[in-house]
Amino acid sequence: MNTDPIDRLSINQITVKSWSLAETVRGCARANIHNVGLWLEHIDETGVEQTVKLLAEHDMAVSSVCRAGFFTADSARERAAAQDDNRESIDLTAGIGCDVLYLVCGGVPQSKDLVGAREAVKDGLAELVPYARERGVRLAIEPLNPLLCGERSVVVTLAQSLELAAPYSPEDVGIAVDTFNVWWDPRVLDDIARAGERVISYQVCDWLVPLPHPTWGRGIPGDGVIDFAPLTRAVTQAGYTGAIEVEIFNEEIWASDPAEIIEVVKTRFAQVF
Amino acid sequence: MNTDPIDRLSINQITVKSWSLAETVRGCARANIHNVGLWLEHIDETGVEQTVKLLAEHDMAVSSVCRAGFFTADSARERAAAQDDNRESIDLTAGIGCDVLYLVCGGVPQSKDLVGAREAVKDGLAELVPYARERGVRLAIEPLNPLLCGERSVVVTLAQSLELAAPYSPEDVGIAVDTFNVWWDPRVLDDIARAGERVISYQVCDWLVPLPHPTWGRGIPGDGVIDFAPLTRAVTQAGYTGAIEVEIFNEEIWASDPAEIIEVVKTRFAQVF
Repeated sequence: MNTDPIDRLSINQITVKSWSLAETVRGCARANIHNVGLWLEHIDETGVEQTVKLLAEHDMAVSSVCRAGFFTADSARERAAAQDDNRESIDLTAGIGCDVLYLVCGGVPQSKDLVGAREAVKDGLAELVPYARERGVRLAIEPLNPLLCGERSVVVTLAQSLELAAPYSPEDVGIAVDTFNVWWDPRVLDDIARAGERVISYQVCDWLVPLPHPTWGRGIPGDGVIDFAPLTRAVTQAGYTGAIEVEIFNEEIWASDPAEIIEVVKTRFAQVF
Repeated sequence: MNTDPIDRLSINQITVKSWSLAETVRGCARANIHNVGLWLEHIDETGVEQTVKLLAEHDMAVSSVCRAGFFTADSARERAAAQDDNRESIDLTAGIGCDVLYLVCGGVPQSKDLVGAREAVKDGLAELVPYARERGVRLAIEPLNPLLCGERSVVVTLAQSLELAAPYSPEDVGIAVDTFNVWWDPRVLDDIARAGERVISYQVCDWLVPLPHPTWGRGIPGDGVIDFAPLTRAVTQAGYTGAIEVEIFNEEIWASDPAEIIEVVKTRFAQVF
């Protein structure tokens, strides 16, 4: 391929948190970036029709939508409510013509039953897959860093994600590889290879040392300790040729001018990827 | 066994951080606790002879000594310096008659070469084992939570620790199971079972949600989301019958009166273990 590497860059909306969806789309287009990762609440706020119009006007593709999931509540009532939300999320994702919806599977419930919570993820997924399939949306299981096992996701490794995905066609259930979440895993390269065509999203950010904050302390690629080359190579060899999405949760970055952040990200992207 | 469960309680010195070694030994004895986990700098400061005397006077056993390791520097010179420190640490541990020395293996080096750093751990261990064996000190490989992969330990899972330990006799190289470090691992129960007699230390603290701080935000058992029963059962079934060491890094707890903290820990210990 003879394309400009920048063609693969996608900006996840959280990286430019202070911008609205419209500002994000316009800001990326101005910076000659043609992919964005969007968040459901912003799509909902902007409206599906207006979002589609904005994307078309700026020749902008959506590399992923964040996020459904949260399957792990103790009570049947709460789980059912989460699934209602999930179906709505699938509708919104399909509505804007994106086919990758992230699943953040849910943290440890009140009962502290970690094994039970993992079973609940399996059950919740089984219930959701047919609905997503009918609407042409692929569910991307995202293992989160074990740091987030308590709060956000009892699914914390690629191996676990692959096991969850195994009963389904890769057309329906894939895996999201995010460097922050998987870089530490001694099995990461093997498991990305095993994942093959199930890799349907690749998000990148760096691990800062020391970590400034458990949740809001992620770094721009190049600022931390992650060696991106082997991970990117593994993802590419697995067959993934889609967007590389820069998703950064960081309070310091959020306090900066988004247009400047995008310029820094572009420069780093050219250096690192 | 018909013993009081409190007989198995050990207080790691870091839990009562504001106390000196002598204060820790006396404070634990006053609270009818007969095991402590000590830190090398305190042994060094107090002196081996005086430490041994204090322990004997208060009928206090040492369940573990923290910590050697740090094998992962990029340069041969730095690695050699770490091994000098490690040999000194083994001498101090043997000097006070303790046979369990923790290994915190070292984080990601400047080069960002994670694979190379893991090789360096393997090599460093190979170099250190004979020295420890001759002095009757068992090295306890401690996988740290992946949260600490960058800063402290590229060894982050029990599976990895078992692989590192495999070439050596369980008499020489064991595994330290710390709930904060391993609770999230989908393989934790199986890997503790596989570890069997290699489990030579069991440390406990809780995972708070939200996590107050990446490093100094650990909780007293019962305050967080860890379900201790299955972990304790697995460790017991693996054959471990030694001390259960409460090790808590937490700035808020450190600001409290250590004698009061010990009372809270005792109460919780009776409830949780």
